[in-house]
Amino acid sequence: MTNFDAIRHKVLGSGQRYIDDLKHACSIPSVSTEGMGFEAMADWVEEKLQKLGAEVSRLSVPGSPEALLGNFDAGAGRTLMIYDHYDVQPVDPLHLWESPPFQPTIRDEKLYARGAADNKGDLVARLCALEVYRDMYGDLPYNLKFLIEGEEESGSIYFEDICAAHAEQLRADDCVWEGGWFDLDGRPEMYFGCKGLLYIELHCHRLLGDQHSSTAVYAPSAAWEVLQAIASFRDAAGEICIEGFHDRVVAPGPQEMELIDAIPFNEEAQLRRLGITEFVGARTGSDLKRHLLCAPTANIDGLSAGYAVPGGQKTVLPAEAFAKLDFRLVPDQDAHDIAEKVQQHLKKKGFGHVKMTILSAENPSRSPLDSMLGDVAKATAARWFDKPATVYPLMWATGPMHVITHDLGIPICSPPGVGRPDSNVHAPNEHIHIHDFIDVIGYTVAYLKKYADRLI
Amino acid sequence: MTNFDAIRHKVLGSGQRYIDDLKHACSIPSVSTEGMGFEAMADWVEEKLQKLGAEVSRLSVPGSPEALLGNFDAGAGRTLMIYDHYDVQPVDPLHLWESPPFQPTIRDEKLYARGAADNKGDLVARLCALEVYRDMYGDLPYNLKFLIEGEEESGSIYFEDICAAHAEQLRADDCVWEGGWFDLDGRPEMYFGCKGLLYIELHCHRLLGDQHSSTAVYAPSAAWEVLQAIASFRDAAGEICIEGFHDRVVAPGPQEMELIDAIPFNEEAQLRRLGITEFVGARTGSDLKRHLLCAPTANIDGLSAGYAVPGGQKTVLPAEAFAKLDFRLVPDQDAHDIAEKVQQHLKKKGFGHVKMTILSAENPSRSPLDSMLGDVAKATAARWFDKPATVYPLMWATGPMHVITHDLGIPICSPPGVGRPDSNVHAPNEHIHIHDFIDVIGYTVAYLKKYADRLI
Repeated sequence: MTNFDAIRHKVLGSGQRYIDDLKHACSIPSVSTEGMGFEAMADWVEEKLQKLGAEVSRLSVPGSPEALLGNFDAGAGRTLMIYDHYDVQPVDPLHLWESPPFQPTIRDEKLYARGAADNKGDLVARLCALEVYRDMYGDLPYNLKFLIEGEEESGSIYFEDICAAHAEQLRADDCVWEGGWFDLDGRPEMYFGCKGLLYIELHCHRLLGDQHSSTAVYAPSAAWEVLQAIASFRDAAGEICIEGFHDRVVAPGPQEMELIDAIPFNEEAQLRRLGITEFVGARTGSDLKRHLLCAPTANIDGLSAGYAVPGGQKTVLPAEAFAKLDFRLVPDQDAHDIAEKVQQHLKKKGFGHVKMTILSAENPSRSPLDSMLGDVAKATAARWFDKPATVYPLMWATGPMHVITHDLGIPICSPPGVGRPDSNVHAPNEHIHIHDFIDVIGYTVAYLKKYADRLI
Repeated sequence: MTNFDAIRHKVLGSGQRYIDDLKHACSIPSVSTEGMGFEAMADWVEEKLQKLGAEVSRLSVPGSPEALLGNFDAGAGRTLMIYDHYDVQPVDPLHLWESPPFQPTIRDEKLYARGAADNKGDLVARLCALEVYRDMYGDLPYNLKFLIEGEEESGSIYFEDICAAHAEQLRADDCVWEGGWFDLDGRPEMYFGCKGLLYIELHCHRLLGDQHSSTAVYAPSAAWEVLQAIASFRDAAGEICIEGFHDRVVAPGPQEMELIDAIPFNEEAQLRRLGITEFVGARTGSDLKRHLLCAPTANIDGLSAGYAVPGGQKTVLPAEAFAKLDFRLVPDQDAHDIAEKVQQHLKKKGFGHVKMTILSAENPSRSPLDSMLGDVAKATAARWFDKPATVYPLMWATGPMHVITHDLGIPICSPPGVGRPDSNVHAPNEHIHIHDFIDVIGYTVAYLKKYADRLI
C-alpha cells in the first residue's frame, strides 16, 4: 500500500516552491475573452510541461485559441489524460477586489488571485504532483497527456473542433477533469458528469420606433410577444412544455439514484443563503436532490424592454424587446436538438416575430462510475482525506466534458480539487486555502501512484 | 353673423406682438418635474391675466405647485372656464435639439421651443384672443375663468385635491380644454373626452442575491414570477382577463359611434409609420376605430431583469425583476378600482411575491357632445377653417379631464388648437406653425363671440 505519510512529507518539503509556482501562474492575466496575457500563460504552461519532459504540441483550428497537449510517452498501452484550462474569467467589478486580481496575495493562509481556484490551482497542483511522483517513484508506467485548453471561460466554442481535428493524438483511457470542491463542511466532492447548457437570446423588433402607449390598441408590442413566447415554454405547473423537450431524458440508474440520495445537501443552510422559506415546488430530501441533478431547467437570465426606470412615468410602447434564457440539460438531451425544438415551438405557437440566437450549446455528459480512474480516485480519496468524498454522478453546472466523454469516448472523473463553495469563483476576491492546494498535490501523487499500481 | 374677416384682419395687425408674447413665454424654462423657471412662468401668466383685468388667485394644497385662477367677473349668470397648464415636459435628450429648447427660434415659418405646442401656444393664443375680443367687442357678457395648472406634465397629482379644495371658486358652465390638433391633412380636431390611465410598477425581489443559473432547479425566479404575472393579465386571444376589468365599461351611444366611424384614420399611412403590415387583431375600418377609442389596453412600458447585454454569456438567476405597465381605461372604468382588481388578481393567481406600486391613476372622461360650448366650438370651426373639424367623442390619450367633468361637473370641449401630429410634443424640436398660432387666436375670438351671442 502506498505510503501516504511519505508523500505528505515530500510535498510539504517543497511546499513553498509549489506555492510560488502557483503565484507565478496566477500573476499572468490570461483572460480569454479579453486576450490579455494569453500567450504568456500558454508559454508558461508549455515551459513547465517541457521541463517535466513532455513533448508539447499546440492544437488549434482556424480562429481558435491554442490548446496545449503535453505528452509523456511511456510506450505503454494505457493512457491517462488530465484536462485543465489556462484561461480565467474576467475580473470585473475590479473595485470589489481587496488586492489586485493578478497580484497574488496571501491573507489568512489563503491565496487571493483570479484563477487561484478556477482552474490554475488544480493545473499547477497536478504539474507539481507529477514532479513529486517522479522524484519518489521514477517514470510513470503509463502514458500521461495534459490537455490544457484556453477557452473554457468563454464557452469552449472551438474545443469540439480542436478535439475532432486531433482525435488521434488525444486517445486516452481515462480523463481527469478540472476538480471537485470541498463542501462547506470540508467533505471532498467528485463528479462523473455535468449538465448541458443551451444559452439563447430572444429578440423581437416589431415597430420602426417606440410609440406613445395609447397606440397599444392597434400597434403590436414586442414586449408582449417576447413575454408570451417565454411564458409558453412552461405549463401551469411550471414544467417545461416545449414539444419533445423531455424525449431524450434518460433517468439515472439505481446506483446513481443511491449516490444522489446520499449527497449531503444542507437545506437549512441553502434556504438561509437564498433568503427563502422553501424551495421551488416545496421539494425536500431525495426529491429535491434528484431534481437538482436530474431535472432540466429553463432559466431567464435577463429581460430588457422599453423604459424600466423605477418611479418614472414614461408611457411608451417599446419597439423592441430582448431576453436571455438558458436551459440546463440532462443526459441524453442534445443541446442542438433542444435548440431546434425551441425554434419549432416558437413557430408553431405563432411567435414568428421572436427571433432566436444561440449563444452556447453544450451537451450534458454522464460518465461510467466504475472506470479505472473513477475507482482509483475514489479509493484513494477515502484514505487520503479526513472525510469520505461525496460522489456526484453529475454536477449541476456545465463544462465541455461531453467532447471528452462522448466525442473522444474517454471516461472522465473529476477528483477532489482545490476549490470551495466560498472560493468566489467567477467573482471578486477569488481564493483558495493554501492547505487545500498542498493537500491536493499529495492526493494527486497518491492516485497517480494507485493508477500505476493497478497496471502491475 | 360674426364678421370673420374683421377678426382675421385685427389679429394679423398685431400678429408680431402675439408671436413675441409666445416667444417670451417659451423662453421661460418651466419644467415642472425639475422645478426650473417655474415661479417665473407663474408670475408671467399672473401678470398677463392681471393686465387683461383679471383678479388672480393662486390655488394650492399642501405640497402642490400653484394653479393660477384668473377671474374675469361679468356679474353674469353664465361662466366659461379655460383650462391650460404653464408647465412643460423635460427637454432630454438635449443634444437632439437643433436650437436650444428655451431659446425660441423661427425656422421655415415654424416656432421651435419646448412648450410651443404643449401647451404654451394654446395658452398664449387664448390670452391674445381675449385682448382682441375686448378691443373689438368690449367686455365679455359672461364670466370667464382661466384655470392654469402647473403639474400637467408630471401627472397632475395634486390637481384633484386643488379642485376639491376650491370647488366653489371653480364653478363654471363649460370648460375649454387644452386644444385639438390639426391632423396630417390639415383637418382640425375636437375632443370631448379622454381615456384614463392606470400606471403601475411590478417588482419582485425573490432572493438575497443573484445566483448561478444552475440553482434554477430549486431557487425561485423573480423574472419568471413577474413574467407569468403579466402573462396572466391576458387570455389566449390577447384580451385582458383580470376579473371584473370590463365591468364598468360603458359602450358609446349611437351618436358617438357615428362620429367614431366618421373619423378619418389613414390606415396605410399609420402602417407605414409603424413599419408593420397589419394592425393588432388584423382590425381595419370601423372595427379598428371603435377599438381605438373604446377599448382599454394593457401595455408593457418596460421590463428589466438580470443580465440583458446582447451577446454576453452570463448564466445568472436574477434575484429581482421589474416591470412597468399602463392600462388605458375607458368610461366608466375607475382607475383606483382597476388598481384594486389588478391587486386582487395577483393575489388570487398566486403571485404574492409580485409587489405592485401605483404611479398614476387618472379616470377616463366623456363629456356631453351637445354642451353649449361644444355646439359653439363646432359651429364656429365649421365656418372658420378650410376643412370641417373631426369630432372625437374622446381621445386615446389621457389628461386630468375627469377632475373637471366629473368632480366639478363641468362639460368640456377641446376645440382645435395649435399642435399637429408632427409637432414633436414631448420630444426634441417641439414646434408649431406660426400660421396655426395666428389662426387659432382668430378662431378663439370667433367662438368666444359666438358663445356671447348665444346669451342674447
